[in-house]
Amino acid sequence: MRARDLVTDFPTVALDTSVYEAARLLSTQRLPGLIVVDERGLPSSILPGTQVLRLAVPDYCQEDPALARVVDEPHADLFLRSLSGRTVREALPREPRELPISDSDATVLELAALMARTRSPLVAVVQEGRLLGAVTLQALLDWAVAA
Amino acid sequence: MRARDLVTDFPTVALDTSVYEAARLLSTQRLPGLIVVDERGLPSSILPGTQVLRLAVPDYCQEDPALARVVDEPHADLFLRSLSGRTVREALPREPRELPISDSDATVLELAALMARTRSPLVAVVQEGRLLGAVTLQALLDWAVAA
Repeated sequence: MRARDLVTDFPTVALDTSVYEAARLLSTQRLPGLIVVDERGLPSSILPGTQVLRLAVPDYCQEDPALARVVDEPHADLFLRSLSGRTVREALPREPRELPISDSDATVLELAALMARTRSPLVAVVQEGRLLGAVTLQALLDWAVAA
Repeated sequence: MRARDLVTDFPTVALDTSVYEAARLLSTQRLPGLIVVDERGLPSSILPGTQVLRLAVPDYCQEDPALARVVDEPHADLFLRSLSGRTVREALPREPRELPISDSDATVLELAALMARTRSPLVAVVQEGRLLGAVTLQALLDWAVAA
């Protein structure tokens, strides 16, 4: 079993897609994360759902639970619903890091090691300079536990 | 909107649950992760799906993509399907870290900050020393993008 056997179509977003649109895509299509593509259609980043959420949280609340706690309920609601003004570009991590991208020949062991190491529930699969789609953690587990 | 309004029932596992059973639960119930409970039924850890997968990957392949690559396809398949002999206890991270657990009063901002900080797609919710269930990233995003 290889990446090409487990890959499925996966929606992509661009760097200038709004965070609201990205969140809507995650919500309505029940995706574990997003593939961000560059102008050539190749994956430039993989964004776990939790990191899309990060943009709804003001900087001063990011690291300090006590500061998130003092924001009252109406304002907390407002923050979470004010995702439209920002773009996916702003949600990307600042430091370079290993991306969960594999070629279509990757074995299930390579996919599992990559997901575990990058803590990403999806791996983007490329073949001959083209994005094929993604292997999700769900697809990998479904295969692993199948009789 | 508070944690108590978004919480849903969530299956739990024990420290001695087999990793195969944990993977089966993730797969069949399409869960983003697992709540591991102690003998009192209280959350002792939260295990993202990617970390359950980690136990199927031999130590020498965890950090080095080149070593995962040399394992041939039949053996790679075998590794991924040999989850039954190990327990959830072995899948837990060795270093102590912040757990995504909140009380039922937490606002959506606190939940979002906690998910972003711990990179966890679920938060376990406790009230008066009892586990109520979990708020998932999906439930939080569904609420945030709802008109």
